[in-house]
Amino acid sequence: MRFAAVAALGILAACASAPAPDGPARSLGEILDQAPAGDWRTVDQDNLLYMQLPQGRVIIELAADYAPAHAANIRALARAHYWDGAAIVRSQDNYVVQWGRDEGDPQPMGEGVAALAPEFDRPRAGVEITRLADPDTYAHEVGFAYGFPVASDGRRTWLAHCYGMVGAGRGDTADSGSGAELYAVIGHAPRHLDRNITTVGRVLQGMESLSVMPRGTGPLGFYETPQERTPIVSVRLGSELPESERVHFEALRTDSATFRDVIESRRFRRDGWFLDPVGRLNVCNAPLPVRVRR
Amino acid sequence: MRFAAVAALGILAACASAPAPDGPARSLGEILDQAPAGDWRTVDQDNLLYMQLPQGRVIIELAADYAPAHAANIRALARAHYWDGAAIVRSQDNYVVQWGRDEGDPQPMGEGVAALAPEFDRPRAGVEITRLADPDTYAHEVGFAYGFPVASDGRRTWLAHCYGMVGAGRGDTADSGSGAELYAVIGHAPRHLDRNITTVGRVLQGMESLSVMPRGTGPLGFYETPQERTPIVSVRLGSELPESERVHFEALRTDSATFRDVIESRRFRRDGWFLDPVGRLNVCNAPLPVRVRR
Repeated sequence: MRFAAVAALGILAACASAPAPDGPARSLGEILDQAPAGDWRTVDQDNLLYMQLPQGRVIIELAADYAPAHAANIRALARAHYWDGAAIVRSQDNYVVQWGRDEGDPQPMGEGVAALAPEFDRPRAGVEITRLADPDTYAHEVGFAYGFPVASDGRRTWLAHCYGMVGAGRGDTADSGSGAELYAVIGHAPRHLDRNITTVGRVLQGMESLSVMPRGTGPLGFYETPQERTPIVSVRLGSELPESERVHFEALRTDSATFRDVIESRRFRRDGWFLDPVGRLNVCNAPLPVRVRR
Repeated sequence: MRFAAVAALGILAACASAPAPDGPARSLGEILDQAPAGDWRTVDQDNLLYMQLPQGRVIIELAADYAPAHAANIRALARAHYWDGAAIVRSQDNYVVQWGRDEGDPQPMGEGVAALAPEFDRPRAGVEITRLADPDTYAHEVGFAYGFPVASDGRRTWLAHCYGMVGAGRGDTADSGSGAELYAVIGHAPRHLDRNITTVGRVLQGMESLSVMPRGTGPLGFYETPQERTPIVSVRLGSELPESERVHFEALRTDSATFRDVIESRRFRRDGWFLDPVGRLNVCNAPLPVRVRR
């Protein structure tokens, strides 16, 4: 009984099924297996940030289409090895894990800068958004673009602060962030940060190294002693790594027919365990499939 | 600069402020400090489950108004010391941490039972819900009742699967759960579980012991070896503990004027850091203030 119960509960990671337009319901695995090659995109190594921690590697995809200046600055900082020897300085439960350098521990920034104009949002025009049909608490329109969860008010569009998204810390003024200090969301989506801070990407691999960081006991989850911090061994851009160290990600295109099938399979849960098929899907509950090319 | 940035980012745990109807904006701390004594309720020790883990204690409030039969069964199992020597068996990133006993490791259940009729929802009539004004992806109506986040379709009402909520695992049939196997939500709210499983309470204290459990590497986040599991030392009902071991919680009544002020202070973020005051609040982003009486 127990294993039945737990297997069922874990359905999120298992195979949901959806009615295919012209065939029997397919599992998520089947949907992905049947995707045409063109529905996958190769993730650009110039948009991949490899952060090496003692416990494992975290790989982040930069959202260059939404935050091009921050992406460029983060690339410059990575090339300058700016984060080597920096640390995870904060872990606040149900909120964020954050990393960077102390003010008293400066490091050459190379061609990077310490402050940038904000990129909280961008014009909606020209962006193809795969829309979700269901209402959202925080925005008129939500969906997916360029592989990321997004929101819009019809005129502007922005990245949605879902679990695993990465943003650039800032001070009280809009132009006080740069990507030199970054955070990843480790709890329920803090969507009130949308349009208040520049979101720069999302974790593609290694999220479980960040999400289990012991919570800091200081205000806002900051660690109170240097010993509690996790050191960052290095942060490198994929395009700078030797071929043997790169991970070749393929991400399902969020403007593909296959992705629409994935979304529908999550909106309507037709697998046996679900007694109520739901028929709704929040933008932050949608899977964004990624696979590694071997 | 860094400390400004990080302090600002952490505003969720800091003091947000809202315009008081007849005075200057108040911080969250000020709102709570000014609450009349009657706006707080003493949490019943008969609804408190104290789970002792090697790394700390987790205390759960049972939602007896929404799942009375499950609450009664969980009380009976606690009195039988059913979970002493059980274990955390699963930790799935952005989803749940789960605990219970193996099938091959039975334990007397006392007056408890292994299967119960479901309590997925209850009649809406007679429940006073403090409603949120903003739309929700999953339900027609969302808000708070008896100290818990809830949703409703106008006719029935149910507990919302927010971060920190606790539910009773079940098999494929509706009546295959009982509370003997429990899980806590450690990621973005899996609201598709609403009305599909019986939710039985929420973690009031010690959530950070559960949320950082190393993720299991087996399917659905199950641990693959016994060594990875965290043993449960004991689970006791507050009403059975000696006075010296009890924690006296006071929870802000979710039907109080003070709680409405708290909600408005989170809907409209008027503290300096927010450039966009948002004006929206998701049911799973609302704080449910609790304090410990010394």
